[in-house]
Amino acid sequence: MHSIVDNISPPFQSEIPRFPIDIDYKTITEVVNQYNSGAGDERLKFVISRLVQHLHDFAREVSLTSEEWMEGIRFLTWVGQISSDIRQEFILLSDVMGLSTLVDSMNNVKPDNATQATVLGPFFTDDARQVEVGDSIVSDRNMQVGDPMFVTGRILDTDGRPIPKARIETWETDPTGHYDNQYPDRKEPDCRGRLFSAADGSYSYRAIRPVAYPIPSDGPVGMLLKKLGRHVYRPAHLHMMIEAEGYETLVTALYPEGDEYLYSDAVFGVKSKLVCSLKTITDEERVRDLGFKKGPVQLLEWDFVLVTKEQAKREREKVVQYLSSKPSS
Amino acid sequence: MHSIVDNISPPFQSEIPRFPIDIDYKTITEVVNQYNSGAGDERLKFVISRLVQHLHDFAREVSLTSEEWMEGIRFLTWVGQISSDIRQEFILLSDVMGLSTLVDSMNNVKPDNATQATVLGPFFTDDARQVEVGDSIVSDRNMQVGDPMFVTGRILDTDGRPIPKARIETWETDPTGHYDNQYPDRKEPDCRGRLFSAADGSYSYRAIRPVAYPIPSDGPVGMLLKKLGRHVYRPAHLHMMIEAEGYETLVTALYPEGDEYLYSDAVFGVKSKLVCSLKTITDEERVRDLGFKKGPVQLLEWDFVLVTKEQAKREREKVVQYLSSKPSS
Repeated sequence: MHSIVDNISPPFQSEIPRFPIDIDYKTITEVVNQYNSGAGDERLKFVISRLVQHLHDFAREVSLTSEEWMEGIRFLTWVGQISSDIRQEFILLSDVMGLSTLVDSMNNVKPDNATQATVLGPFFTDDARQVEVGDSIVSDRNMQVGDPMFVTGRILDTDGRPIPKARIETWETDPTGHYDNQYPDRKEPDCRGRLFSAADGSYSYRAIRPVAYPIPSDGPVGMLLKKLGRHVYRPAHLHMMIEAEGYETLVTALYPEGDEYLYSDAVFGVKSKLVCSLKTITDEERVRDLGFKKGPVQLLEWDFVLVTKEQAKREREKVVQYLSSKPSS
Repeated sequence: MHSIVDNISPPFQSEIPRFPIDIDYKTITEVVNQYNSGAGDERLKFVISRLVQHLHDFAREVSLTSEEWMEGIRFLTWVGQISSDIRQEFILLSDVMGLSTLVDSMNNVKPDNATQATVLGPFFTDDARQVEVGDSIVSDRNMQVGDPMFVTGRILDTDGRPIPKARIETWETDPTGHYDNQYPDRKEPDCRGRLFSAADGSYSYRAIRPVAYPIPSDGPVGMLLKKLGRHVYRPAHLHMMIEAEGYETLVTALYPEGDEYLYSDAVFGVKSKLVCSLKTITDEERVRDLGFKKGPVQLLEWDFVLVTKEQAKREREKVVQYLSSKPSS
């Protein structure tokens, strides 16, 4: 056998760094972080160093085999390759692993007297048509098939004062459980609308009752959930995003009570404070007054309470302080 | 404001589970693992539960912002989408983050008296032409441009006994620093060969001196390394994979000394025990005897020492025992 070279002499270019090379599973994490220590951006350096630590600790703790590693590589590649303009499988993966809700809950904590936030999801678009007070966000075609729903309430601050001119974006499933932008041949927005609160903070619009639906399950995320023995359903919900000058934008959703998937939402979006009651209106005159041709109509009354940017900043600071004071579990 | 529903009554289908919904960044990890607890495969359940724990702990420790999360989603999607039949960017990402070497070093530990293993890399193919003793693995075209190199030695067990009929797969860069399968128009294998050790364990073949080269850097991994202030080079090396009946397959590579990237390999593949010396042969008669038309020829002499499957199993068990006895850092 030939001599083992433990010390190799130069020449090295002065710019080329020199790190330990006799690394093993015990020492590699430290060396990788040495490699990355030249990052110009301090935040990037910190984030990557913790990512490398946890990635390596995970592999060590489960004593990851080469075959499992290769399976992971294939899985992530599939997740990337199935993603397209109308499908984001990495967000879906983040959703079903609870990461999206974790990130949302760290970044959008609300005080108890404000409306709670929840995940945006992948189905928001910025091209919703503007509707006036009491108008419909749903096409006639879908209104005929769905259950009519009237949504009304006020936009308030945490002292109960109305917020006028708040911009409300709202979107929901059609009667088949799909958002309009899940259709490759989508021509115009449907089941989504933009409206503004009145001087007294009030808003109202016509919609249909949203329905529970399966998340896309013909790809890697669906395969994983099946292996994990999990269903792929989300309970019915109505998305709302509310912006007003001086206030923190609220991204949230309302979940009608009674849905069988409320307590096992595939993407961890439900909060009990966002579960709402619907009242059924059968009186024909009232149905017509609300702008519907036929009933019964579901009435969803909800006041949204926004926090100021200053309040939001304080809540976020509390989270950061809590997290930095606590070692992770 | 409307009543908050804290307890929602049935009906629930008996099969649909019921988990806590009032989760936040402190409690979500436990709930996600409750969701996943129905996995039929115990190993999968364990691996996913540790993955979720570390993924969440990472996000909490750095107090990941929504913008950083979105940047991560975009980055991983790009990694998946740039991957193709001749490019595997997720393996490359794993390589530059040290995960590939970590997994390799946990799964392929060798005792001190055996040849050390290193990462396979993405450039192995199984269609190398078979070469006889002393034959060339390099096309005439590349042999004219490259530095001739003669590789010879023996395949041995840890007691120094020769292993005959060992199957040796070997592959290397061409003079421009590319593997043949990096060319989309590749027609046949080049700079790679398959040979078998003789009765006395010996092997020999003609090659060219491999050269240092940049890993593919026009994609997300290259962009990340740039932000981290890292170069993208690997030191020159000659890949070897050796299989023999009753022995653990050895995947390794030899790194000629003096390369300026030896101590900062972009993918953490070097080990000092795999650094080799080359002797320069200028004697014209000896050059011709080795089968070359012109010199000088670099002589690489190396004996590879394989472990039995039984020895390999023992080494792996030691690793698993060590890892399971130690809490991660």
